[in-house]
This record gives sequence, structure tokens and C-alpha cells, in this order.
Amino acid sequence: MAKRTRIKDLLNTTEFGQQVTVMGWVKTFRNNQFISINDGSSINNIQAVVDFNSTDESLLKRLTTGAAIAIEGEIIESLGKGQRVEVKVSRLEILGDSDAEKFPLQPKKHSLEFLREIAHLRFRTNTFNAVFKVRHALAYAVHKFFNDKGFVYMHTPIITASDAEGAGEMFRVSTFDPDNIPRNDDGTINYKEDFFGKATNLTVSGQLEGELAAMAFGDIYTFGPTFRAENSNTTRHLAEFWMIEPEMAFYDLNDNMDLAEELLKYLIRYAINNCSDELEFLKSRLLEEEKQKPQNERSELDLLAKLNFCLDNDFERITYTEAISILRNSKPNQKKQFKYLIDEWGADLQSEHERYLVEKHFKKPVILTNYPAEIKSFYMRLNEPDAEGRRTVGAMDILFPGIGEIVGGSQREERLEKLEGRMAELNIPTEEMSWFLDTRRFGSAPHSGFGLGFERLVLFVTGMTNIRDVIPFPRTPKNAEF
Amino acid sequence: MAKRTRIKDLLNTTEFGQQVTVMGWVKTFRNNQFISINDGSSINNIQAVVDFNSTDESLLKRLTTGAAIAIEGEIIESLGKGQRVEVKVSRLEILGDSDAEKFPLQPKKHSLEFLREIAHLRFRTNTFNAVFKVRHALAYAVHKFFNDKGFVYMHTPIITASDAEGAGEMFRVSTFDPDNIPRNDDGTINYKEDFFGKATNLTVSGQLEGELAAMAFGDIYTFGPTFRAENSNTTRHLAEFWMIEPEMAFYDLNDNMDLAEELLKYLIRYAINNCSDELEFLKSRLLEEEKQKPQNERSELDLLAKLNFCLDNDFERITYTEAISILRNSKPNQKKQFKYLIDEWGADLQSEHERYLVEKHFKKPVILTNYPAEIKSFYMRLNEPDAEGRRTVGAMDILFPGIGEIVGGSQREERLEKLEGRMAELNIPTEEMSWFLDTRRFGSAPHSGFGLGFERLVLFVTGMTNIRDVIPFPRTPKNAEF
Repeated sequence: MAKRTRIKDLLNTTEFGQQVTVMGWVKTFRNNQFISINDGSSINNIQAVVDFNSTDESLLKRLTTGAAIAIEGEIIESLGKGQRVEVKVSRLEILGDSDAEKFPLQPKKHSLEFLREIAHLRFRTNTFNAVFKVRHALAYAVHKFFNDKGFVYMHTPIITASDAEGAGEMFRVSTFDPDNIPRNDDGTINYKEDFFGKATNLTVSGQLEGELAAMAFGDIYTFGPTFRAENSNTTRHLAEFWMIEPEMAFYDLNDNMDLAEELLKYLIRYAINNCSDELEFLKSRLLEEEKQKPQNERSELDLLAKLNFCLDNDFERITYTEAISILRNSKPNQKKQFKYLIDEWGADLQSEHERYLVEKHFKKPVILTNYPAEIKSFYMRLNEPDAEGRRTVGAMDILFPGIGEIVGGSQREERLEKLEGRMAELNIPTEEMSWFLDTRRFGSAPHSGFGLGFERLVLFVTGMTNIRDVIPFPRTPKNAEF
Repeated sequence: MAKRTRIKDLLNTTEFGQQVTVMGWVKTFRNNQFISINDGSSINNIQAVVDFNSTDESLLKRLTTGAAIAIEGEIIESLGKGQRVEVKVSRLEILGDSDAEKFPLQPKKHSLEFLREIAHLRFRTNTFNAVFKVRHALAYAVHKFFNDKGFVYMHTPIITASDAEGAGEMFRVSTFDPDNIPRNDDGTINYKEDFFGKATNLTVSGQLEGELAAMAFGDIYTFGPTFRAENSNTTRHLAEFWMIEPEMAFYDLNDNMDLAEELLKYLIRYAINNCSDELEFLKSRLLEEEKQKPQNERSELDLLAKLNFCLDNDFERITYTEAISILRNSKPNQKKQFKYLIDEWGADLQSEHERYLVEKHFKKPVILTNYPAEIKSFYMRLNEPDAEGRRTVGAMDILFPGIGEIVGGSQREERLEKLEGRMAELNIPTEEMSWFLDTRRFGSAPHSGFGLGFERLVLFVTGMTNIRDVIPFPRTPKNAEF
């Protein structure tokens, strides 16, 4: 057959009468006449019309949901509802059958839970076509944003011997035969015999290596997989997920916040401009889903309104200290509706508090800054003690409605003595981290950076509610299928 | 100080007289007057001129190689050689000192071996600035190429329970305490207790998952890290490297070759168009390096000529059978200069043979097709037996001068029975791979794909000769530093 044309292009064509070849999968076949075909290029199907009088009946019987077919025919104006063009089939070929009795995806609504079990087939549904198209668009927009600004994309290492930020439990990486691990005379494991000559893990963050690069290139970003071996089975955690981590020399905390806000707005706008069909579909899907909920739990805004709302408003920037004061005086705190009541300055904020600030108090994205040093990482820049003598760091977290923390960042501690002091406090060995400290020894400069959890962004933009539904093959406790 | 302007932008400015702020690192300081500053945005430095009469001497003494500084001043036309503009400094601030006695990077030539030891600082050299700028440009061009063609970027899993192609030894991933591994009653390891409830590894390829996605979206690509636990300490192997793996439904072997050739030419052209300063520098670097070699080992073409040569010529497409015939009759085979002499059809080609075909015989990139089934993977499509009854598969490898195999791909076996037959031959358990076989059970269709080793591409375009020098922090046997 001739070279195929993508359905996405055909749906937009105005050249009626042209002969085309279409290949794709049968979604439905109605009245022995109308084939709805999808080739993945668009969330929308094209309708093909076969003349059942001139077509072999055995062929028609094989037009089952999921079958792969190739057709040739003429593009004609459609008289039916819901489509502008259709193909009048002159030749039909079955490329691969799909046994209607066995094919798990029937033309009906399947639960997201069921589709997760068949993650290898769920791509063929409208919902996951839309979700992964949006995911693609957002990933591309990340690269475009940074490339256009002159940032250098760095592939920081996945296998590492360092624990970047004590960010959580790590996966061990080894080539040892677990039945025959080499030992030293004292019985300890002889890691010198392991592949890398030392104990290694999967990275939890590319930040520290990113800082090394920023102190040479000025502006860099990473976009790669990161890992947490935490046994948390929630709708918001994955063991393997993708992170975007820009690091910028000569940026202070305000520059950092400006960049993060600009990035998030750019990405949301890019999706709105480039995924209109997908977002319309996902908006309707979400409205359907929310109908199952009691009225007071439904969103006030639909998906597109929520996205536009983020674009139209400056993110609210407040300090941790201001946030504590708002939360302490809030209704849910005074009525003891919070699970964790806010009493003292220094408390770590929980998801319920973040959501209160964003969804109830400010009703827009919030950037919280200057957290207590005690609840943040060693590499964050120490501020001068405040009027009460309390010690804070130049951290900034961006909180989004429905998501909570979507960005976490800080100005980095560029002063060698302060950094070494913090590492000593937290018992972080400075010798192993000598390469990191070198950036502070040789030509140190103020610099900042942040991490954006890519799946949380995709969750926000698609309106999906389980993080397992926005990554192709989720890795979670007891699950590494496919 | 005011917002900084990037040196890259200043070097192109024509607005003389403007006041600017520059931040960066001191490369050299000459005659107590001329500071050469680099901020990483360009491989080129900007010259700043200080008035030593009006500047504190203690400040001038701190202008050592590697120090981070901020200056304010006026952009003026330069009278010196080698630059068009310079900054007349009105204010100078040291952001971070660099002890000249201790800073490992002096303004002299360092060996690549030495720089590998200080990979965290080598980014600040001209060579590595150029290499990683080209790497960035190539990575961006990969995304742009596929995005513009409507391909969907898929993040295939890094942690996997399947061995995609038996492509080599794998790294084990586990959260077991190696001193206390849970056992079953019979003494075997109880992987049900491990994080994922089974034994898991780092992926060697995203291809199989990519195929699942291609059979829904039509055209997809991956771009992510892959791993080989092979103990090979060569200039061409890494334990952790990045791969680009497109998979296309409805593509046959010719479509596959067309796409791969188009992609490679696009990437090389993109680098030439967007990295002219960097490639000029790398061309000179390579010429210098080659001066150390005997005349007959030097390249016939310089770096840019070699890149342009790839653009100007169609890649030569020949079958494995034709290649064997050329090699069997070649001088080095007849004079027994090959380490592995080519005698029988069926022999696996070694690097020396690939290089002979590309560099001596055809003198251009070569695509070899239709290899013996016995030396290729199970998922490659079986051809009809040839005239002599020999069994080949629809594989295609692209060979590049100096690099050898840069792309490996094939049409995939879409026929369920043939695929199951090959898996049985090779003792690959079909039960665990049921999800993979489902694509052949439900709506199978001809499809193809290939893998492009990203570091090999960067090696080729930059003219570097050791793969450790084109990835930020190389992972090799006994080395996982930084």
C-alpha cells in the first residue's frame, strides 16, 4: 500500500477527493459499515465507511475492537454527526486480529484500577492517550524553556556513591551474587570487590552534581529519573520518578522564585496551547469523576479554569513565619480539625496545612520561604537570625492546589565555613564530599536551584488523581511489572 | 549590583557605552590590568580592564585563576587583538577566592586523564565547556526532531524485572540488608520480601516497553539512561549511558533506515548550525592531538570536514551477505592482517571489520542489513530463507567512521508464532513476557525501531576519543566518583 497518512493530519484536511492510506486500530465497528479507527496520533478517531456488499464477509467479521488494519480510500466530507471528514474505503487489509473474547479493552468504560493492571494496553484508551500526550508536551516544553534561556542540560549520574540530601531510603546497586558476597577478614562486606569498588545506590537527586556544573556553566538543568525506596503506598508517591532540577550561579532566592514561577506558568501555558483536544477530554473526564463525589468535595473550578487561574495570578509569596501565624489563627486549627495542630514556630508543615493555605486561605499557588534551619537540608543558605534570634534558611517551596508541594528549592550555602558547620551539626562526613566543598573553595559564588517533580506537574495539568496514572509503568512497593 | 548580562550576549553587542554587570570566573589576570572572565555561557571570555591606580592592591591580588568575581563597567570597543569588545571596570567585587597554590586548574594545558580525576572542575576548561555545550545541543535536537514529527516521548522504566534482550550483565537493585537477606525454607532468597516483591535490575534497554507504546501511539521514542554491568575498561564502554530508542508502528526495515539516517543527519546539522564556536575549538584541539600521532594514523579529514562529509553522502546500504563477500576478498583478510579472519558466512563482525568497511572500502557511513538470525536478538523479524536456505533477520546496524556501530535496530517480529518459536529456541520464558506477546495477540502490525547510543554520537560530533570525556560523571568498573 502507499505511504500512510496520520489520522491527526487527515482530520484537519480540506482536500476532499484525495486518495489516502490509513493504518491503525479498530475502536468500534457499527452497522457492518462504519469503522472507527485510531492510530494514536490524535485522541480523535477517523471514521471509515466500507461497502459491505462488495466486501468479503469473513473480512468484516475480523473488524473487532483492537484489530490492526490498513485501508485505502477517498477522503470525503462526512454527513454523520461528530466528524467533518471520513474515508470511503476501496481496499481493506487486516494486519493483526484481536480476538473479541480475549481482548481486555472493550468499548466501554474501564476503571483506572483495572487499567493499571494492564498498563501495557491502557495506552490505547482515550484517557491514557490524552495523559501521555500531555506528558510528552510538558517534557518537550521543559527542554524548550531551558534551551531558549541558554541553560545547559546535564545528565547527572543515576548510580552514585553519595547520598545527596539524606532525602530518604535508597536502593542498593550491586553486581554481587547475593548468595556469595565477598567478605573481609572481620566479616564485613568487601565492597572493593563490587563492580564500582564501593557501595553504590540509585540517586535521590542530581542537585549536588548539578551545582558543580552550575559553577562552571552558570545555568544548567537536569531532567532525569530519581528514586526513593520508601515503603509508602499513596496516590502521590512513586519509587521511581522524574525530576527537573535547575541550578543557577549568581541567583539569589528571589531570582530562584522568579524562575520557578516563570517555568511553571510557561509549562501550563504550553500545554493549554498545544494540547487543547486532550485537555478538553480530560476536563470532561474529571467532571464525570467528580459527579461521584459529594457536592462539597467537588472542585470549584474545572480543569481548564484551574490551569488558567494559575496563569492569571501571581503566586503568593510568604515566609514560613507568616504561614505559621495564619495557620495558628485558622479555623481548622482553632476548631481542632487539623490532624496535626499548629502551635509552636518550628513545626514541620503537613499536607493539610499546605492545602489550607493554598486552597482555602489564598486560593492560589503559594511560595513559602525562609523555613527553620532545623527542618531543612544542610546545603540551604543560612539567613541572619531573625528578630527573635531564630535560625532560618533561604528555602522556597511552591504549593499547588490539589498537589501540595510541587517545587522545593533554596539559595545554596556558598560560604565554606557555614556549610562545613552545618554538615558537622548533621554528622555529614565532609571528607567524602570534598568534591562538593571544592565549589566553595575555588571561586564560590551565590547560587540557587530547585527541584520540580515531573509527575506531580503532570498530575496537576491532566487532573488525574493517582500518580500511577501519569507515568507509563509505575514502580511502587511490590510492583515492578512490565 | 544590577542584573548581570551573560558574556555570550555581551560578546555580540554593538551597544558601546552601555553600563553592564558581569559575573564569572577569572581565567587569567595579566599586567595587573587585563582580566579574562568566563561565565560558562560561551566558550569565549570577555576581557575586563581595571585601573590599577585606583583599585585597592589587596583586591588585585585576589584576581587569581578560578576566583569568582562581579564587575560593573562600560562596554567599550577593544583595541587589543582577539576581541571586539571589552569592559572598562568601574566596580569590582570578589565573590569567592581561589587559592592559586591549591586550585588544580592552572592556565596551562592539562591532560584529559588528569581532568578525569577532577571531573567536578573540568567543566571550567575550554575543552569541556565545548564538549558539554555540544552534548546539550544534540540532546535538545533529539527532542526537537521527534517532537516536530509527532513522536511521543516515553519514559520507560529504569528498574525492571525483565531482561529486555539478554543484552549483557545487569546491575541488581534491592533494598535487602546484605547482612541479613531473607530466605525461604529451602535456603533460597525470598525475593517476595524485597522492595518490589521480586528480583529487579537496572534496565539494559527501553525497547520492549517502547514497543508496547508504539502499538498504541504509532510513533514513540525514549531517551533515558541504560546500564551494562560488563567489566570492560575500554574507551568506548560505560556502565551507565544514555540511549535514544524510537519505535514506530507500520514501519518496515526501509522506513526504519530512512528515519535513522534522517535523524543522524539532522543532529549533525543541528550541531554545525548551533555550535560553530565549540566545533571550531574542538577541530583545533583534535588537530593538536593528532600531531602526536604518526602521519599514517592521522585522520584524512578534520572534524568539520568529517561532519559535513556525513551530511553530503547517502549512507551506503548493503546486506550482511554482501559485506562478508567484500571482507573475505579484502586485502587485510587475504594478508591475514585482521585479528579475526573472515571465512564463513555467519561470522559475527568485529570492530576491525566494521571500520574496514566504513573507513577503507566505502569511506562513508554504512548500513548493514539482514544479519544471520543466529547472531541477533529474538525479537528481530525473520526473513524468508535466502537462495542458499540461510536464515536471516531484518536487522540494520549503522556504522560510523572512528566509532563503529552507532545505531542498532531492526524490523520487529510481529507474527506471534514466529516470535514464540524464536523465544523457545533461545529458552526465553514466554510466561513472564506475556505482556510483550500481548502486542502480537491483539492488533499486531509490522513495526520497527532502533537504538542510538547518545555518548557515541557525542564522541563522533566532538571528535573526542574517550567516551569518559563526553558524559559528565562517567561510571566504569571501580569508578563511581562524585
